[in-house]
Order: sequence, then structure tokens, then C-alpha cells
Amino acid sequence: MRSGEDRLLEWLRGWLAKREGRAPLIGDDAALLPGRGRWVVTVDSQIEGVHFLAGTDPAIVARRLMAVNLSDLAACGAEPRFALVALNAPGDFDHRRFLKAFAAAARRYGVRLAGGDVAASPGGLVAAATLLGTLPARRRFLRRSGARTGQALWVGGTLGESAAGRLVLAAGAASAPAVARRAARRHLLPEPQLALGRWLSARRGSEGAAMDVSDGLARDLHRLCRASGVGAVVEAVRLPLARGFASLCRELKRDPLELALGGGEDYVLLFTLPADESPPAAFGATRIGKTIPRGVRLDVDGERRALPPLGWDHLAP
Amino acid sequence: MRSGEDRLLEWLRGWLAKREGRAPLIGDDAALLPGRGRWVVTVDSQIEGVHFLAGTDPAIVARRLMAVNLSDLAACGAEPRFALVALNAPGDFDHRRFLKAFAAAARRYGVRLAGGDVAASPGGLVAAATLLGTLPARRRFLRRSGARTGQALWVGGTLGESAAGRLVLAAGAASAPAVARRAARRHLLPEPQLALGRWLSARRGSEGAAMDVSDGLARDLHRLCRASGVGAVVEAVRLPLARGFASLCRELKRDPLELALGGGEDYVLLFTLPADESPPAAFGATRIGKTIPRGVRLDVDGERRALPPLGWDHLAP
Repeated sequence: MRSGEDRLLEWLRGWLAKREGRAPLIGDDAALLPGRGRWVVTVDSQIEGVHFLAGTDPAIVARRLMAVNLSDLAACGAEPRFALVALNAPGDFDHRRFLKAFAAAARRYGVRLAGGDVAASPGGLVAAATLLGTLPARRRFLRRSGARTGQALWVGGTLGESAAGRLVLAAGAASAPAVARRAARRHLLPEPQLALGRWLSARRGSEGAAMDVSDGLARDLHRLCRASGVGAVVEAVRLPLARGFASLCRELKRDPLELALGGGEDYVLLFTLPADESPPAAFGATRIGKTIPRGVRLDVDGERRALPPLGWDHLAP
Repeated sequence: MRSGEDRLLEWLRGWLAKREGRAPLIGDDAALLPGRGRWVVTVDSQIEGVHFLAGTDPAIVARRLMAVNLSDLAACGAEPRFALVALNAPGDFDHRRFLKAFAAAARRYGVRLAGGDVAASPGGLVAAATLLGTLPARRRFLRRSGARTGQALWVGGTLGESAAGRLVLAAGAASAPAVARRAARRHLLPEPQLALGRWLSARRGSEGAAMDVSDGLARDLHRLCRASGVGAVVEAVRLPLARGFASLCRELKRDPLELALGGGEDYVLLFTLPADESPPAAFGATRIGKTIPRGVRLDVDGERRALPPLGWDHLAP
């Protein structure tokens, strides 16, 4: 059931733990470095043909690359500080357009560019960014492993809209209706939930897990549950969907529930809190279920069924 | 005369300086982050078909990726601490072999793995690593801009052997003589000059520039001179060459001087020192010339000619 990617990460964690004789640094959305300054680091790529269509505006790819990395820092409660980018692009690529947009996006979040590497790539565009953040005093590093049985399960925003936007873009619908254009925009330019991550990392209690939904709610929930040693039940009726999402799914001939559970690239935070605690309403987060001792389940109209780890596997055979 | 890469970097530095209203962090082999901890960061990629031949053992690519990034930290005098890797590989790639070798190489240099990202790459293998190091107390951050007229110009090791090794590998010479095999090995597995960088950054005087030779001595010397606002003259007869290099070049039908000046991927340090100062002999560094007020020149048998920026341009049209 676990993805090729999860098996690889688990093998690597085990191998490193044995070699280093201590807990590996990897396993969360970002890593908290031991030593002074409480630095938090993460790396994520955007690949032509995988994360975006060939022909996508380099400025969009740059902003998306910044956003997906910021989302990893948000998931750990860190404040973004510095960015490095490795830009491997075909000969005719507009490097300046990409770098301007990357630096402008960085600046919007208080991030300074601290390194870059450019090389010609015989394949398509492959861009990797590393983000460095810090964890201020009295802020907690948020981990996937913090969930305990009996907590409430939350998501920071609507699900499935990004995947619908990807389908809209793939269909090349130039004159799509407003709801489709909004989905496409949501897909291309996700908003990292830094304020929500900040709140989670600064709240008084230390209970709870957090991560971002990048590969699909179901797959990422499986990861959170496995890391925490708990199970979870999601109530289908509570899944937050964007306005017009159901009709857009009809247009696209897709099941809304399937896209919400496994579409991926939502870049909203998935987190648990004690049952009696809620984030401020301004964040627009939604309680979608709760943690249970074991199993990952979906409750549809009062009937509980197993929820398989639907979503992306970047190492699927 | 400047490469496409250099023009891009210069444009970006100018653009950032204007936007941020202060000196950009980029421009040296690695960047010194402002704030506590004196962190030094760098990013560098290895791309199939650009930096290594298709079919190269993933373990070799991993060790090379670690080495070229360590060389950047060495050039700035930093101590390596943490590494992140973005591994974008085709479906049949042996991720475990790569990651084991990468982590083992890291460990050899006291580096811990602090992040990774894997994704399927429809093109060939593209691997980018970010290295984080620290600059200990009483150690100076080495910059390209530290050269002044009248200093001695040094390199940390032999030149051209790596490029010869690349040619040996491209020719697919399975039963090559020992000198060719050594060149191939030098090309595949460069040794980052961390000890030399440490000495340069810890010496009492603050005069002098440093960088590593990755794109060719001539091109990188042009960069050092431009950053420092000086010129340089290199004495051809002093260029350090590996044992058997001349005969290997005859085999390869290449001019040894051309490979030494522009072959690239040598990963030795290029640095300047006051004329009366030398690194300890154990480092095996060689004085190859001196800095002058302007121009980059090559002295061949007492005749001075212009030395063009021979070497790699990763953004050549």
C-alpha cells in the first residue's frame, strides 16, 4: 500500500539511523538542524512534464517553485529567510524572466536569494529550490509524528481544486468559465499557509501533528498516521470544497470526492489538535475528522470504509 | 568575452542590489548568510549528458555531486555540516545505490543529510545538492574579490587531468593504460581541497582571493580578476600537470596547454597571496603567476599574450 517514495524514505531513515547511531534529520516536510539558530531547511523541485506542462510561463514555474517550498516551511512552523535555486533549463529558456519572478516571490515573503546554479539541461526544465528558515523563540517545530488518538483532524483550505485546475490546463481550455480559471490559477499559484503554520507552532499546547497536503489528502494522511502511530477517520461530508467545484467536476467528468481525496498539490496544511481547540476562524480551516487508534477510514453517510492512500507516488513503477 | 552565465549572474546581482538596496549575497562560490552562526551555503547540480555520461554508476554521480559542492565550501573556507539533495531520475534509476553513496560521502566529510526530494524525471538524471557549512571563529570568508595587484597567483593542484579523463571516458577506453585510468578517476571523483581552504581562511593576513576551478583555469581566473578589479599573468611553464599528462594528451591528440587552461572540472583552488607568503608544502600548491593592474595574460617562453576566458559556459548559445 505504501508508495515507492515512502518505502525509499523509510529505508533511508533506517539506514541513516543505523549508520549515524541517532535519529535521522529527515522525515518531516522540512528538517530542524541541530545547533545554534534553530535553522529549518527543505528542498523541492518543479519538473517540466511532471509538475507543470511544457510551455508554462517561466515566471509561473518560478513562483510555484517558491510556493511549494514555502509550504514545507509553513508545515513545520518556520519563518522563511533564504533561498537557493538550481536551474537546469533547455537552451532557449528565459532565465531572466524566471529569476526575476523567483526573486520577487522571495522578497514578498522576506526571503533573500543566497545561491544559484544554472546549467543547460538536455531534457526539459528541472528547477530545484532549497529554502532556509528559522524557528523563532517560543515556537515549536511541527512534526508529522505529533498526532495522538482522540485529536481532531483539520485541513487549512479546500481540497481537489488544484487537481481540477491541472485538468483544466491539460485540456487547454482557453475560454474556460470563471470557476475553471480560478481552479487553474489555484493549481499554478498555490498560497503557502505560513500564517496558519505560525499559529500552530506558537500555540501554548504541544500536542498535535502537521504537514502539508502535496501528494493527495489520503496519501498524506496515511503518512501522518504512520509517523504518529495512530489511525484516522475522515468524514466525507466535511471535506471543504471550493465554490463551484462540484459543477466543475461534472464538466471534467471526474468524481469530486476522488479529486478531493487524491488529486494532490493542494498545499494546505493537514494537522491535528486537541478535540477542544480550534484555530482562529480567519484561517478558514475545517475539521474533517479525528484520530483513532488504528486504520485510515472514510465515513460516507455514516458508513465507514477503508481509505486507501490515493494520490501521487513520484516513484510509481 | 564574458560567458552567458557570467552575464546572467552580473545582471542578477545588479537587479538584486537595486531591489534590495544592499549588496547581494551571491557572487562567490558559496554565500555567507548574515546573522548568527556564520552559515555558508551553496548549490550545484550534476546532469546526465552534461556533467557525466549516460550509464555512469549512480554511486559515482552521488560522490561527484557531493565533491563539487564541498569544493565550493572549500573555496570559501567553510566547514561542511549539512546536505540536501533533489534527485530527479528516470524510472529505472537505482535510488538506493545513489543515496547510500551520497550519505556515505557526506559522512566521510562530517556532513549529515538534512533533506531530500525525489521525483521521476522524463529526461535523464538531474541531481542538485545544497550544502550548508559554517565558518568557525577566527576564520575568514574567502571571496573572489580579495585579490590586489602584486600578489602571487596559486593553484592547489594539477590542471587539465580531469578534462583528459573526460575524453578517456568518452572514448570508452576499457583497457586504457594506468595514466588514462587515473585521469578518468580524477574526472569522476575529484577531491575537494577542504584542508587548503581551511588554511587560507585561518591564516593571519586578510589579503587574497579564492575560488575553485570548475569551468577552466582561464575562465575562472577572468572571474577572479573581474571581481577583484585586477589583472593577472600566468606563466605557462609553471602550470602544474599530472605525471604522464603530456603523453596522455599526445594519445588524445589534444594540446596539453589548452586542456590545462580551459579543460575545466579540475576542482582545485585558485587563490592569491602576498608575494612573500606560501602555503605549507604539504598542500602541493603551485605558484603559477601574479596579479597585475589589468588584463589577463599568458607568458609563454617570455612572450606575453592575451589569455582569453577558455573553458565552460553553461549558457553558451
